[in-house]
Amino acid sequence: MPSNASVIVRAEFPVGADVLSSAMTAVTMAGGEVGGMDTVRSTRETITRDVVIHGSDDAHCEEIVGTLRGITGIEVLEVTNGIFRAHEGGMLTMRTRAPVRSRDDLSMAYTPGVARVCMAIHDDPERAWDLTIKGNSVMVVSDGSSLVGQGDLGPLAALPVLEGLALFMRELADIDAFPLPVDSSDPAVIADTVAKISSVFAGVHLADISEPGCFAVEAALRDTLDIPVLHGDAEGTAAALLAGVLNGLQVTGRIIEDVTICVAGTGPGATAFRTLADAAGASEVRAAETAEAMHDLVKGADVYVGVSSPGSLDRDDIAAMAAEPIVFALGMPDPDLDPGDAEGVAVFGTGRPDLPNQVNSTLAFPGMWRGLLDVRASALTEQAVMAAACAIANVVAEEGAVAADYVVPSVFNKKLAPAVAAAVADASQRAGVARVAPTA
Amino acid sequence: MPSNASVIVRAEFPVGADVLSSAMTAVTMAGGEVGGMDTVRSTRETITRDVVIHGSDDAHCEEIVGTLRGITGIEVLEVTNGIFRAHEGGMLTMRTRAPVRSRDDLSMAYTPGVARVCMAIHDDPERAWDLTIKGNSVMVVSDGSSLVGQGDLGPLAALPVLEGLALFMRELADIDAFPLPVDSSDPAVIADTVAKISSVFAGVHLADISEPGCFAVEAALRDTLDIPVLHGDAEGTAAALLAGVLNGLQVTGRIIEDVTICVAGTGPGATAFRTLADAAGASEVRAAETAEAMHDLVKGADVYVGVSSPGSLDRDDIAAMAAEPIVFALGMPDPDLDPGDAEGVAVFGTGRPDLPNQVNSTLAFPGMWRGLLDVRASALTEQAVMAAACAIANVVAEEGAVAADYVVPSVFNKKLAPAVAAAVADASQRAGVARVAPTA
Repeated sequence: MPSNASVIVRAEFPVGADVLSSAMTAVTMAGGEVGGMDTVRSTRETITRDVVIHGSDDAHCEEIVGTLRGITGIEVLEVTNGIFRAHEGGMLTMRTRAPVRSRDDLSMAYTPGVARVCMAIHDDPERAWDLTIKGNSVMVVSDGSSLVGQGDLGPLAALPVLEGLALFMRELADIDAFPLPVDSSDPAVIADTVAKISSVFAGVHLADISEPGCFAVEAALRDTLDIPVLHGDAEGTAAALLAGVLNGLQVTGRIIEDVTICVAGTGPGATAFRTLADAAGASEVRAAETAEAMHDLVKGADVYVGVSSPGSLDRDDIAAMAAEPIVFALGMPDPDLDPGDAEGVAVFGTGRPDLPNQVNSTLAFPGMWRGLLDVRASALTEQAVMAAACAIANVVAEEGAVAADYVVPSVFNKKLAPAVAAAVADASQRAGVARVAPTA
Repeated sequence: MPSNASVIVRAEFPVGADVLSSAMTAVTMAGGEVGGMDTVRSTRETITRDVVIHGSDDAHCEEIVGTLRGITGIEVLEVTNGIFRAHEGGMLTMRTRAPVRSRDDLSMAYTPGVARVCMAIHDDPERAWDLTIKGNSVMVVSDGSSLVGQGDLGPLAALPVLEGLALFMRELADIDAFPLPVDSSDPAVIADTVAKISSVFAGVHLADISEPGCFAVEAALRDTLDIPVLHGDAEGTAAALLAGVLNGLQVTGRIIEDVTICVAGTGPGATAFRTLADAAGASEVRAAETAEAMHDLVKGADVYVGVSSPGSLDRDDIAAMAAEPIVFALGMPDPDLDPGDAEGVAVFGTGRPDLPNQVNSTLAFPGMWRGLLDVRASALTEQAVMAAACAIANVVAEEGAVAADYVVPSVFNKKLAPAVAAAVADASQRAGVARVAPTA
């Protein structure tokens, strides 16, 4: 069950009595899940705790809290919505890298010292990579027209998603990312706006822009800018997908050169994956752009990859595929193939966190950005995306752990982002788009 | 002497011997100044220190270091340029407000939890002030066309200055400010670009845009946006200037209602100050738009305020002013009136850090922004600028310290930004542009 709702329950528990475990059992029996837990304060008689509880929706959470209130010994003091609390005040903050404590610091950071730094950059623009925040800064851009599972909510409502992406970049790859929703639905205007404010950034990350506009934005920016443009839903998703496919093939004893892959959909993930699978040497890559075409094209295919709507792939399709079919059904919130219909599927991956093999762009983009920034890349190349895919797959392979329900690593795997970064930095250098060599 | 150059000298000093004070004396004798000092390491025989030394230019710094090398017992290990080192890697970084350590945190910060936050903002856009970084974020914008003392260096070279402004806002007023140089010299394009990316910000700070384009950018943005637009070189400088004038008049026993003020220049500071001085009730405000006009108009004036070039105000002009003339000559790096010609001036203020009465926008804008953000203001009003000016003046007045060489507080005065913030928040609420009441 995906955790669509959560509450933080602040409650007083008696010391000594085993009321906490009764509470945990009650939550589980009510179909909920206990998340984190913190001790707020304790006295000789009582311990006050904050307990995070996940439920399927708000009503479910209320029901669970009601059960807790019924347990003798527990006094529920306060219930707050966990998701909204996590987002209160936003998730990012701008900090100074060194404090300014004196007139001395001031004269170096600002007037009159700064004038010399400005002049040095004016004389040699490449120095901006060393003397400003540019070298580690990524702009996270969307028009909010295609939020996962929600459609077009506009730029302001997209901000929490963009903050989330920036947060991943900071936490997983030490990147200074800034969320910038753009208020326009015209691809040319979006690209133009982004280009005009690009000087302070070392890269542009695009997310959640609807098709086909997203492709136009991407293409226009790649023509204009001398920094990489990474479309998270395209190359990010494609790299993660290819990693899953490669390890899935290993589980079933095949290699990509021998297999037929049916890719369903016209969105950025499907489109970018088609290109990448081709480049990876797949024997045949079939493009199913409509539901009808898909039912035909999936026949005899070894692998299905789709980012489509629930039920677009069914039991009959699975039966018509080659033996030991591999399915990556990334439709969100509900996958193209109902998990209940996945019987007979050898390796099954989705975008859902509550099922094995969760594949999404988060596996790829933090490390990809780290690698691109480390060599001050001027562009994102196909070689870099391919290197990222192989690196993601290798993290699991190197653990010797590849299995039908473990084809991609966790996003919290500490080896993941550094491995992807090193591979992307190296590939970028080989492709001739690195401004500097990767640091050892 | 303004510190236009500085070096960090890493040197080994013998323990016990009084070589450090000989070094300090040598620096001072050579016309330099010792800034900060850190101990790097110490052994039984030696202490290694980093000593910051300011000089008038690079050659002067080298000369001073040469003197140090000549002192017996000191071994100079390394000399680095202090200013460039302070700017290495930029001065800002984006951090998360709460760490993401688990899948639990992740589900709240990002999928699937974030979807509910997006929808809440879509349903009620005002919630973005609470649920995203918007409420504390300010965009710091320039096209780099008018960097102080340097002219038009373009957007990239302006970045260190914008970082400096953002750094002030963080350090002095807890604001998340992001530097965004815009690559265009067309005011309409600049305004349009800023407007399209404004959703994530609670305010727009304009800086170092050349006249008259800066006025067009300012006007266009004020027409379009529902957040404040503060032009640092205009309202920021004007508020600081008025504070200096008010306390200067107090020193000489006059009130603003009785005096004639001659304002020289057509730039944003002079223009905004003229409006503000009028609003403050000055008996007469004369606008001198050319050097010739100024020599006429300054005759008999009680106060001269200018942001002009060196020598534009001279001894004859001072002699022609009313008794106990007050002069604020903010031309940078060299003031309109040579300090050597300021004899007979009752109160003399400049933009220079090495003279008393340093007046610049830094006195005003951090606190102004804090106040505007605290009430989620929809606009910057004249009342708010006036309130800021009075608050700055009051910080010195309340200390009972107003004197000819102390008419404005230090930017490091801890009472300054909070006092300005409270006054601006209050004035914004009275003017009807506050979305929420100031918090106590």
